[in-house]
Amino acid sequence: MTQQSFGGHRAVTIRHLTAHVGEEVLVQGWLYNMRSKGKLHFLQVRDGTGIVQAVVFRGNVPDEEFEAAGRLTQESSLRVVGTVKADERSPGGVELQVSKLDVVHVAEPYPITPKEHGVGFLMQHRHLWLRSRKPAAILRIRDTVIRAIREFFHRREFACVDSPMFTPSACEGTTTLFKVDYFGDEAYLTQSGQLYGEASAMALGKIYVFGPTFRAEKSKTRRHLTEFWMVEPEAAFYDLEDVMDLGEDFVSTIVGAVLAERRDDLEILERDIAKLEPAAQKPYPRITYDQAVEILHADGHADFPYGEDFGAPHETAIGARFDRPVLVYNWPAAIKAFYMKRDPDNPAIALGVDMIASEGYGELVGGAQREDDLAALEERIAEHQLPREAFEWFLDLRRFGSVPHGGFGLGLERTLAWITGVEHLRQCIPFPRMLDKIYP
Amino acid sequence: MTQQSFGGHRAVTIRHLTAHVGEEVLVQGWLYNMRSKGKLHFLQVRDGTGIVQAVVFRGNVPDEEFEAAGRLTQESSLRVVGTVKADERSPGGVELQVSKLDVVHVAEPYPITPKEHGVGFLMQHRHLWLRSRKPAAILRIRDTVIRAIREFFHRREFACVDSPMFTPSACEGTTTLFKVDYFGDEAYLTQSGQLYGEASAMALGKIYVFGPTFRAEKSKTRRHLTEFWMVEPEAAFYDLEDVMDLGEDFVSTIVGAVLAERRDDLEILERDIAKLEPAAQKPYPRITYDQAVEILHADGHADFPYGEDFGAPHETAIGARFDRPVLVYNWPAAIKAFYMKRDPDNPAIALGVDMIASEGYGELVGGAQREDDLAALEERIAEHQLPREAFEWFLDLRRFGSVPHGGFGLGLERTLAWITGVEHLRQCIPFPRMLDKIYP
Repeated sequence: MTQQSFGGHRAVTIRHLTAHVGEEVLVQGWLYNMRSKGKLHFLQVRDGTGIVQAVVFRGNVPDEEFEAAGRLTQESSLRVVGTVKADERSPGGVELQVSKLDVVHVAEPYPITPKEHGVGFLMQHRHLWLRSRKPAAILRIRDTVIRAIREFFHRREFACVDSPMFTPSACEGTTTLFKVDYFGDEAYLTQSGQLYGEASAMALGKIYVFGPTFRAEKSKTRRHLTEFWMVEPEAAFYDLEDVMDLGEDFVSTIVGAVLAERRDDLEILERDIAKLEPAAQKPYPRITYDQAVEILHADGHADFPYGEDFGAPHETAIGARFDRPVLVYNWPAAIKAFYMKRDPDNPAIALGVDMIASEGYGELVGGAQREDDLAALEERIAEHQLPREAFEWFLDLRRFGSVPHGGFGLGLERTLAWITGVEHLRQCIPFPRMLDKIYP
Repeated sequence: MTQQSFGGHRAVTIRHLTAHVGEEVLVQGWLYNMRSKGKLHFLQVRDGTGIVQAVVFRGNVPDEEFEAAGRLTQESSLRVVGTVKADERSPGGVELQVSKLDVVHVAEPYPITPKEHGVGFLMQHRHLWLRSRKPAAILRIRDTVIRAIREFFHRREFACVDSPMFTPSACEGTTTLFKVDYFGDEAYLTQSGQLYGEASAMALGKIYVFGPTFRAEKSKTRRHLTEFWMVEPEAAFYDLEDVMDLGEDFVSTIVGAVLAERRDDLEILERDIAKLEPAAQKPYPRITYDQAVEILHADGHADFPYGEDFGAPHETAIGARFDRPVLVYNWPAAIKAFYMKRDPDNPAIALGVDMIASEGYGELVGGAQREDDLAALEERIAEHQLPREAFEWFLDLRRFGSVPHGGFGLGLERTLAWITGVEHLRQCIPFPRMLDKIYP
């Protein structure tokens, strides 16, 4: 038998109840909260799509069901059959007049009570904490963002190409690599799918990699996870301008999708939506690294040394000048990755771009036009003292039909933190992994 | 400047040329093959979306461009501006009459010549081999399947919830785990997101996990990869019948999407499409384990011992009885995982289901209704001698509002091998990882 109906009534999710006003439906879920008053129990029932008030009136249900409702504990599971009634005062616009109540399981005393709990405690109970309103709202927004990302690339004919998790070499540096015992040999967990993305773009034209990446960061700041998801488009016949066009189109589309589909969840999170709305609109401002340094010198960082990379306070100061993310391009080559193409008119400049979020959320996107000249790339690999053998296959891409190409990487959790307005990246992934955290 | 136009002409991908007959457009790509005849060069140009014949006539382009065309080597990159002409004899229905040709890069002698190469050689050049017609067709079908999977779940309101790659414990057994040095502690790479999926289903109702999973398989057979992608839906208030309904709906939808969108790529792969078509139709046959054993006893496996698990030859024999995948349910509990619910009427039976593909491709889906009773699950964990502490959080799901629930796992590469009709799983992932293979 199926669980999708009960007592002749088909299951409806709470999110869709408004389309069933006047009908008798089945709702299945868990008790979020309850209050009782004489012959009435007011059950707050959650099912993952929303919360509805189910009103149990002693006269409307058998006595034993009324008594059972009164004994329900927080997070007990239940099925209720009831009539959907429009109710202006309810958060979802409806409530349920219960005609039948079936207790599925009475929960033991639930550890996450409605009172305040410390984050350490909540993280140890992450498998349960996900049921709470704010974490569940973030998960739903995460789902929307993931879908918006994939839909964006599909519409623009970028194919999804998965890059490997096990890699024989590091893309950038080796100090933050996780090492795996690979049948007696050493392998590393991927930090970026970019190099594989470049090979795939030469095969399919336009592609994106979207999967987990790993960094063995020894810091415990709110900006660090050891495991996070990254999306990395790469396209043949793209230059820096094309990469910037794609990046602003991409981020504004994602923000637009969340505003359109998840406004209720942003409200649960108490996000200041007015501050997010401009980011759904193109164009985004574009400034050079030089102009960014001028902003720093004017805005409280008078002693910032030209030529250095920006730290968190610098990104915050630059981002604060604009109402939406800003693209900072044309970077000093010395502080950028070996694979970035140099400006043909000024080899000290790398054709890279960072997109910096407003409101202090830092770098959302890092991208570049790639070096497509074999000799230049060989020189960079030597300069950066990278193991040449490990990059032989990558160099092949410049031996056989090299083309101008570029792409970027966007960290999913960082982007989610900005969109949802939460402070810690660890709130933006279902089961965060950090220096001191691998359970549950 | 952008690379999306050239000489005043906007870039068009080869797949869309049929919509531009009579127009002069820009095509950017690589030389797949060429033949010349007097004043004509016939260039086969590929751009990842298709291949088009570009006809270069000496009178139509400057002499130096005609000469340059003659010197193009395999996989050289180029831009051509030309008029799209309908041509019945061309594979894509059109050809290009070239008016301008710009050589971007002349390739060094390309290692993958049109002659036959061994798989070992091709796999060492996987970063280039992806450009060939069949590998590129598989990548495009993979993209379509991934999108069909996500679209399927989105339409049915399953939220995507990513499970962690680093896990403190094993879901099933420990012999095939990859071990990671996690800041001096030991962690393992995930073999399944199911347990995390169950926790998430209790939070959001219906969810799916879709990401890489790992198995340190010491075998080199055509069925093994050390790293592969798995999709694992899990839903609260689902029983075995709901899981089977979902599975047949799911697989038939994916096959339907590939048949609708990628027929040309199936033809490149010489797939016998008539054999695939029935799998796009529901319902799929459903038989019990007992009935499957009867088939084995009748079809060449007379000595198969009742109660054992099926091996590859058994799956092939069972699959051969049907024109589409078959669901085999109600298994001997002794050979199934600890977390499967037992049949309330017969505790020797586990409420599990395997979906076995036709044509010898083996198990596509493994699923079950989960054990939702705390005491029963504790007993199973003890019976299977699993480390109880590691499962404490998982047991919490049965302490706090336990509900009937279920789900399944589907291996992406196995499914792709079946749909595309290729022999080896390693052809179904862009950069395969195997016992002896981690490069490029």
